[in-house]
Amino acid sequence: MTDRTAAPVNASATAPVTVIGLGLMGQALAGAFLGAGHPTTVWNRTRSKAAALVAAGAHLAPSIGAALDASPLTIVCLTDYEAVHELLDVDDVTLDGTTLINLTSGDSAQAREAARWAERRGARYLDGAVMAVPPVIGTAEAVILHSGPKTDFDAHSRTLGALGTVTHLGEDPGLASLYDVAGLAMMWSVLNAWLQGTAMLRKAGVDAATYAPFARQIAAGVADWLPGYAQQIDAGSFPADVSALETDARAMEHLIGESEALGVNAELPKLFKAMADRAIAAGHGGEQYPVLIEEFGRPWAD
Amino acid sequence: MTDRTAAPVNASATAPVTVIGLGLMGQALAGAFLGAGHPTTVWNRTRSKAAALVAAGAHLAPSIGAALDASPLTIVCLTDYEAVHELLDVDDVTLDGTTLINLTSGDSAQAREAARWAERRGARYLDGAVMAVPPVIGTAEAVILHSGPKTDFDAHSRTLGALGTVTHLGEDPGLASLYDVAGLAMMWSVLNAWLQGTAMLRKAGVDAATYAPFARQIAAGVADWLPGYAQQIDAGSFPADVSALETDARAMEHLIGESEALGVNAELPKLFKAMADRAIAAGHGGEQYPVLIEEFGRPWAD
Repeated sequence: MTDRTAAPVNASATAPVTVIGLGLMGQALAGAFLGAGHPTTVWNRTRSKAAALVAAGAHLAPSIGAALDASPLTIVCLTDYEAVHELLDVDDVTLDGTTLINLTSGDSAQAREAARWAERRGARYLDGAVMAVPPVIGTAEAVILHSGPKTDFDAHSRTLGALGTVTHLGEDPGLASLYDVAGLAMMWSVLNAWLQGTAMLRKAGVDAATYAPFARQIAAGVADWLPGYAQQIDAGSFPADVSALETDARAMEHLIGESEALGVNAELPKLFKAMADRAIAAGHGGEQYPVLIEEFGRPWAD
Repeated sequence: MTDRTAAPVNASATAPVTVIGLGLMGQALAGAFLGAGHPTTVWNRTRSKAAALVAAGAHLAPSIGAALDASPLTIVCLTDYEAVHELLDVDDVTLDGTTLINLTSGDSAQAREAARWAERRGARYLDGAVMAVPPVIGTAEAVILHSGPKTDFDAHSRTLGALGTVTHLGEDPGLASLYDVAGLAMMWSVLNAWLQGTAMLRKAGVDAATYAPFARQIAAGVADWLPGYAQQIDAGSFPADVSALETDARAMEHLIGESEALGVNAELPKLFKAMADRAIAAGHGGEQYPVLIEEFGRPWAD
């Protein structure tokens, strides 16, 4: 058993690590630690899921408590936060002095509540979000976000580096899940816009492969504007130095008309227009697109 | 007067060119031709708008007919297609033998109709769309799309190169306006997703400038997937080798819940979910996201 409190807050390439939860993602995480040479302890309710990892050198702990005791750092990757509490928030599990990194999917309120719970139990706690699918874990392509105390992240960042590109977002433990869902919103938006355009072009006989490079170029080009547009939001001032919102709204009308004429779905274009129209009705037609932050920043009930 | 039919189909850096319509965009186009050394003739209903161009060396034609006669190539950039027909579809204007490039904003049906009309009048016709704001015209950043006969585009591509990055999309004259609105749909989608994420992060005290680089990275990263995803659409087969639509739908539920909990607008997340749910209801929950092309490809009336 490792004396957790005495365990060096280290950056050793061979620091021991524990992974609790061996779904596809948990297995990928444990496999990446093993591959990087970390003594890796695993635990899962269904023990058979550990078989491949044990064959690769992992230690299967007989209990949650033993799993936590085996390493100063434990990665938790379960179905949801209820499962986290069900397994770890029990009397015979000691968390005192350990560091938990919870990569379980959940919302920011759950993350903050889990951080308070862990603190009460004497554990260090970071919340995380995996922005990657299991097959890329262990490569630079796997982006893993962390939030919580920076010192705790720094103490383990070298170990965590075995998983991919690891980032610390800030002290608020809710940030990882907020960035996660915000990133997903971007993902679905880019995909939906591409599908909208692809559906339109297919009506004119253009195949998806022909249109895709154009969509890719536009998405990447617009992405490059974001840091500059962000300055308008932080300054709370939206001069139309590129174009005015009312100009966008007229072009949205073209997009709706073209979608309807082609017989493709027009819901997304209509939502663009509805939000722009509200901002124009509020007197922002002569300002630039990021002025819509005011519409995005409040609930809408029609 | 230039004999149009005898005019060399040339790539000369000093080929004469005419610009009809001197709004902000038309002025920028004419200015770029002048700057590249092309003898440039201009015409505008309100003649005073030509003053700066004339001072820079442009020739202001006394009539539309004289403007068309001055060059083998005429760029038309007016308010809308009605204005194009009003000015050019009159008995005393001869179009026979000239090449018109119509950069006026409109839809694909208007472009195709204009191409048929021009052909009846004996003109060569390309439809175009300017994917740029006037200040960047004349730089590589200005992307200008063209569609119509490739031979006519090739004959003038060197002259057109003075305007920016010029592209030929295909023979169908409707393509330029379709790519234009499809590109705008991508632009608004990236901006809206960024605004959604920014609104969420601001509720956690993260400023827009801090969040923007993350949004930019995600947008550009997802854009890189599009060519691969396009292959699924063209093949009509959507194996879930990255993730299944039903997994996305569960994560969309998180995004909706987080948006509502934070008190930000949830319309966009709800639209994502509604479209995914329809595809899942149609039996596609185990397939990959691009299977939504079927939903995007047809109108929705609930």
